[in-house]
Amino acid sequence: MNLPSRSQYLGIIDRAIEEDVGHGDVTSEYLGVADRECVAVATNREDGVIAGLFIMKTVFERIDPSIEFEAGVEEGELVRKGATLATIKGRAGSVLAGERVALNFLQRMSGIATFTYQFARAVRNTKAVVVDTRKTTPGLRLLDKYAVRAGGGRNHRFGLSDAILIKDNHIAMVGSVAKAVEKAKENRGHTLTIEVETSDIDQVREALDAGADIIMLDNMKLKEIEEAAALIDGRAIVEVSGNVGMINVTQIAMCGVDVISVGALTHSPDALDIGLDFV
Amino acid sequence: MNLPSRSQYLGIIDRAIEEDVGHGDVTSEYLGVADRECVAVATNREDGVIAGLFIMKTVFERIDPSIEFEAGVEEGELVRKGATLATIKGRAGSVLAGERVALNFLQRMSGIATFTYQFARAVRNTKAVVVDTRKTTPGLRLLDKYAVRAGGGRNHRFGLSDAILIKDNHIAMVGSVAKAVEKAKENRGHTLTIEVETSDIDQVREALDAGADIIMLDNMKLKEIEEAAALIDGRAIVEVSGNVGMINVTQIAMCGVDVISVGALTHSPDALDIGLDFV
Amino acid sequence: MNLPSRSQYLGIIDRAIEEDVGHGDVTSEYLGVADRECVAVATNREDGVIAGLFIMKTVFERIDPSIEFEAGVEEGELVRKGATLATIKGRAGSVLAGERVALNFLQRMSGIATFTYQFARAVRNTKAVVVDTRKTTPGLRLLDKYAVRAGGGRNHRFGLSDAILIKDNHIAMVGSVAKAVEKAKENRGHTLTIEVETSDIDQVREALDAGADIIMLDNMKLKEIEEAAALIDGRAIVEVSGNVGMINVTQIAMCGVDVISVGALTHSPDALDIGLDFV
Amino acid sequence: MNLPSRSQYLGIIDRAIEEDVGHGDVTSEYLGVADRECVAVATNREDGVIAGLFIMKTVFERIDPSIEFEAGVEEGELVRKGATLATIKGRAGSVLAGERVALNFLQRMSGIATFTYQFARAVRNTKAVVVDTRKTTPGLRLLDKYAVRAGGGRNHRFGLSDAILIKDNHIAMVGSVAKAVEKAKENRGHTLTIEVETSDIDQVREALDAGADIIMLDNMKLKEIEEAAALIDGRAIVEVSGNVGMINVTQIAMCGVDVISVGALTHSPDALDIGLDFV
Amino acid sequence: MNLPSRSQYLGIIDRAIEEDVGHGDVTSEYLGVADRECVAVATNREDGVIAGLFIMKTVFERIDPSIEFEAGVEEGELVRKGATLATIKGRAGSVLAGERVALNFLQRMSGIATFTYQFARAVRNTKAVVVDTRKTTPGLRLLDKYAVRAGGGRNHRFGLSDAILIKDNHIAMVGSVAKAVEKAKENRGHTLTIEVETSDIDQVREALDAGADIIMLDNMKLKEIEEAAALIDGRAIVEVSGNVGMINVTQIAMCGVDVISVGALTHSPDALDIGLDFV
Amino acid sequence: MNLPSRSQYLGIIDRAIEEDVGHGDVTSEYLGVADRECVAVATNREDGVIAGLFIMKTVFERIDPSIEFEAGVEEGELVRKGATLATIKGRAGSVLAGERVALNFLQRMSGIATFTYQFARAVRNTKAVVVDTRKTTPGLRLLDKYAVRAGGGRNHRFGLSDAILIKDNHIAMVGSVAKAVEKAKENRGHTLTIEVETSDIDQVREALDAGADIIMLDNMKLKEIEEAAALIDGRAIVEVSGNVGMINVTQIAMCGVDVISVGALTHSPDALDIGLDFV
Repeated sequence: MNLPSRSQYLGIIDRAIEEDVGHGDVTSEYLGVADRECVAVATNREDGVIAGLFIMKTVFERIDPSIEFEAGVEEGELVRKGATLATIKGRAGSVLAGERVALNFLQRMSGIATFTYQFARAVRNTKAVVVDTRKTTPGLRLLDKYAVRAGGGRNHRFGLSDAILIKDNHIAMVGSVAKAVEKAKENRGHTLTIEVETSDIDQVREALDAGADIIMLDNMKLKEIEEAAALIDGRAIVEVSGNVGMINVTQIAMCGVDVISVGALTHSPDALDIGLDFV
Repeated sequence: MNLPSRSQYLGIIDRAIEEDVGHGDVTSEYLGVADRECVAVATNREDGVIAGLFIMKTVFERIDPSIEFEAGVEEGELVRKGATLATIKGRAGSVLAGERVALNFLQRMSGIATFTYQFARAVRNTKAVVVDTRKTTPGLRLLDKYAVRAGGGRNHRFGLSDAILIKDNHIAMVGSVAKAVEKAKENRGHTLTIEVETSDIDQVREALDAGADIIMLDNMKLKEIEEAAALIDGRAIVEVSGNVGMINVTQIAMCGVDVISVGALTHSPDALDIGLDFV
Repeated sequence: MNLPSRSQYLGIIDRAIEEDVGHGDVTSEYLGVADRECVAVATNREDGVIAGLFIMKTVFERIDPSIEFEAGVEEGELVRKGATLATIKGRAGSVLAGERVALNFLQRMSGIATFTYQFARAVRNTKAVVVDTRKTTPGLRLLDKYAVRAGGGRNHRFGLSDAILIKDNHIAMVGSVAKAVEKAKENRGHTLTIEVETSDIDQVREALDAGADIIMLDNMKLKEIEEAAALIDGRAIVEVSGNVGMINVTQIAMCGVDVISVGALTHSPDALDIGLDFV
Repeated sequence: MNLPSRSQYLGIIDRAIEEDVGHGDVTSEYLGVADRECVAVATNREDGVIAGLFIMKTVFERIDPSIEFEAGVEEGELVRKGATLATIKGRAGSVLAGERVALNFLQRMSGIATFTYQFARAVRNTKAVVVDTRKTTPGLRLLDKYAVRAGGGRNHRFGLSDAILIKDNHIAMVGSVAKAVEKAKENRGHTLTIEVETSDIDQVREALDAGADIIMLDNMKLKEIEEAAALIDGRAIVEVSGNVGMINVTQIAMCGVDVISVGALTHSPDALDIGLDFV
Repeated sequence: MNLPSRSQYLGIIDRAIEEDVGHGDVTSEYLGVADRECVAVATNREDGVIAGLFIMKTVFERIDPSIEFEAGVEEGELVRKGATLATIKGRAGSVLAGERVALNFLQRMSGIATFTYQFARAVRNTKAVVVDTRKTTPGLRLLDKYAVRAGGGRNHRFGLSDAILIKDNHIAMVGSVAKAVEKAKENRGHTLTIEVETSDIDQVREALDAGADIIMLDNMKLKEIEEAAALIDGRAIVEVSGNVGMINVTQIAMCGVDVISVGALTHSPDALDIGLDFV
Repeated sequence: MNLPSRSQYLGIIDRAIEEDVGHGDVTSEYLGVADRECVAVATNREDGVIAGLFIMKTVFERIDPSIEFEAGVEEGELVRKGATLATIKGRAGSVLAGERVALNFLQRMSGIATFTYQFARAVRNTKAVVVDTRKTTPGLRLLDKYAVRAGGGRNHRFGLSDAILIKDNHIAMVGSVAKAVEKAKENRGHTLTIEVETSDIDQVREALDAGADIIMLDNMKLKEIEEAAALIDGRAIVEVSGNVGMINVTQIAMCGVDVISVGALTHSPDALDIGLDFV
């Protein structure tokens, strides 16, 4: 896995620590146990794909650079319940201060990776890939999108500035799909891809003729998807979006589409159950 | 509902906007539609408890103070599918720039509120209240905990600094429940409550004798919970924690406990399905 | 002494350095002496309790990680005039750049610790403890409250969010002490302590009956304090506040109260006289 | 009085609010009184010079822009005990949230202004002016130095970058006063003033010959000060520093010096007693 | 012109103000003229394309919201020497505090726009467009790239994350152009464009066969450019880069290329001479 | 060269990195080359004075502390085209991520240093020194002014707070040069220098009589400059400002002035051409 670079997530981690620690861990301090040495082990209590151990490591490092952290599995690895995900040694005060924050990151990221893995496996015998959306948790998009990659998915555009995505509202304001694509081509920098959201086969045809790079089939039925994919026939990338679930993702993939975007990957994943035990 | 104060969430909102907008919304800009006036309506596509309209409002306000925002329902209101949650009027460029960020907040917060509402309703004929934990999304604890209140739950301690919570690891390091409570009393400021996590009836008794303010029954069976509650008998607050789900929460509540903490409220809620349509 | 954790005070230190250094120390730079090696020693010019050597150390470390810093006394230690508090070795440019900032912290924190020590000693043969208030210097509460602990005091609530403190204004708005306490109990999270400020024996009785955890006797006379303490008789924590000075603190403590809060500890301490000499 | 510009102190105020409010004022919120309208009045409980009403105003404005604030006296005004310093109207939740922070600023700044006023009055019949030092509270230098001006003092250099001040350590490293001044003149930008700290009359002479703009007489006796002032005779500005108190400041001023710097103005002022009462 | 959104440049402006104002404008303050009302007019002292009046306006607004600012020309307008670019009315202290910062922005941005305008005009009868590079001033890329658009150019990728640009070093590490493009296609999100930097006609052919979206001809001679453009023939976007100046840009454009990137637009523009006069 | 201290430029560097890297270098990541080891060499492609290698080093250090950086020349050194300015070893992903940002700083700073060097050399046989102005790039003043020193120039005041500079607008508002200087003397701190901008010989005389420390001759002709310098005759520092270029700077210097300020040094320097090649 290619990890996000460190400078990109330090702020996220520091704010999470500050949020939890407040003006100090009164329990460890007042019990006078902060300076004891201890060893703790992170274990997953259910099967899953692990993502975010480098974040867990950095949480402890930010709280106390003297903590030793050893990962037990790889990023993106599918592990059975009960694996030793990481071993942490150091001052009890530091380990206890970082415990919850570290787990909150790891459980959420591994939850997304595991959820994505299920979708990716469901389309593995087709040419389709599963991608995320912008329906991420505010402030955590970098990590959410990384976790999708860790689970075997790919990333849609990161945000509003790295691709042109013409939606129904834009089309309505500009007048037509053709006019919108033309306008975009007239002004955009040449590195920006143009994607058009379509809701029926006529719009697909119009987008294709206008020279869209990517055509999104929004909330279409299987039959329409098949028809649209056949019509496009490699002249643009075909993306399916809307109402995709484990129940229908394989069927959609078999319609010959290139990309299937799934909002639930990041807006409604279950946290993977992971605990930290002192030994 | 008592809302968090504005200065507490502006940073959260600003970072979320920056994350999504990047160096600008290239679609609206290059299509030249940014200056059109438009009206958009937020609607829930499934029943739920709404939380976060004031956040949605602030997202748009931070992007463009001239946007008009009108909420259609109350914070914490249970609404049927299809309600008009909010109406937004203003520059299309501003509405489109804020759309996804605003919905990401509203969907997540309403998801937590709705999930909490279900738990709160399940214990409504008992003296028990449902509370959250520190298993929140990194960076969003303030909003997660607010959403729990909006759904009818209450809040456990906010973080490590606003209550003393003595867990098994602390007890192991200090020597015994009694010593740990004594040590805490010796050093703490007088406004700090002392809670002790216990795993069996002997520890409950020890904590009670030591004068703990709150006794947490961690992962105990129904029978043990009942026994512990009877033993404590009002001399301390009784909290149940661990493996609480919709399946068993009513039974637990009927054991005579005061507080039931549920991590899933904030670590694994489903987003409430809410959309924004231009009219 | 349990120190605040590093991530909590780095921002405070960095801003203080920036404030003093501005765009650079023009004296050392233009005299060309910045790269000389030097040794400096911090010495207290009057007796006192030392607090803040770890802050002094961090100031130099932030300016220049290669500086060597050795503390000569313990945090919270009462030292006679003329002690070697710390020895600093390194580039003259770095030592001179950090000198004033480091001393400003150390002198202020040791001033608070010394002042607190005097109060704590005055009540040492009673069950009363001396605590601080929220009358701290804006931006330095973490360090002010730490210095109080270093001097032998304890901490009142940190701020508005970690305990409920019902004052006269709240009571006036809600209607009565009883109603206010009831309302608080109805909504608060179970880890939050309820303190009530009272101004006469009737209010004390009402607060006690309502089940307040802590009862503050605000600006009462010695006789009233004694009467109130006798009435409460261990059923709530008794705190005295208002017009407490070295002159009357022992007498107040002898009335059988638990806690005495003193605003002057942090709003009007004299700096301890400490200098830095080059050797 | 010329006030510091707003952008310079907003960060200071915001951090102070965050420090006190934490994740919210649980008392007002849980008592349900936050939305009541109220009026509060700030009154000084002892005579003093008032400084910082614009800061108080900004504190409330940052918490709630709808609060109405009216100052009752002028910045820098000497007022008798019991004056109405300010009237604040608005939501009780907002007034209560800002009360302590606002008073902490106002009491400290007025304390400094009042202390400075006493020194300034003591030298009013001489040509000497009283100035502050860099012995300010970390993070509050801007406000501390403003308060000194409000009390009738003037400001020494703000920090390390706005004037050259050659001290004993610099002289030791460079070799002599003459060499140090020469070196400074060789490299400095032409707008930077050169001040030299001297400890005896020989150094004064050397500094004068070298062309120092300002000569500081450090810890000299009255007789030496008089002799030095006579020697310098207007060819450089004469500053006295070290061990200046109310007891000797008039005598020092009468020696014919231009400037007297007093560290205690900002490192050990007593807060002025000011309260906020609801009406 | 489509302007960057406000939230994106406020930080840039605030830091620039802080940098210049330091702890206050001592001249206006000590002369006591800060509160006078004044009117100032910005005028260009040479012909040019104006960019950045909205930034100038925001500088004054951040210093003092009561300042009235009226722009006299449009963003991106080519104006003759001596035009009234903007009129500013308000407190002298505020106008003087913002003057230099506002002009520093306006002069630099208008310098870039004017320089770009010259290039854009030189290629106006061809299909080529002029674009910028990442050779911008650190911290000002958003404004630099906006100024390029204001001058009639377009934008290349904003930074490292919004397009894939395979350079010689990447090719060397991966093994060949073909392998690099294949690898990129295998992993990238589908919205990311792939550009390949080529140095000779063989690499152009390889990139074309591999399916690159954009082929950059790096430092090629006119003849090679012509040959490459003919070979590509619309199957990829053709970009020329390296050693482009006013001297040869027209000739390059006439080779049939789509895009010409010019680093000098942002790394070496001359500031446009603009002054602010009080009336 | 005396370098700015590290804490002063880290924020500048971090923002520049964030600006360029965005949410990650998609090219290196998706090509899978980020973890390769590589060596790169920075070389100047034209003669010039080098400034900013310590900034280049810090850019790489912030991205990846394990990168090894070795400077090949001194700060402020005049080097012939083709010199090895620096050698960088480490992970390719890190070197590529920092390349552009590091060069953008180095090229700009060396451009300023080289431009300044030319001016400084042109006045080297006179007593005049060349200084910069406040016409710097927003956000980069610290580095711009450092680069001027590296090129052999000196620094004028840093910003509005470190010297009093009375301009025509101030004089108009106060009434006369004499009144303005008097007013400044009345209120300023004693370390602040007073400079007066003059436009004719009468104003020069007035400023001199009023006791200005520095007299700026603004946009005067050579003859007037000579006359003014003769009149002042060492009783104040003489600064020339306005329309200074390589064409006339030597003549101006020969008029007997002390300081010549040149805005173009920082507002319109050409970047020095420097490249980074992998070996």
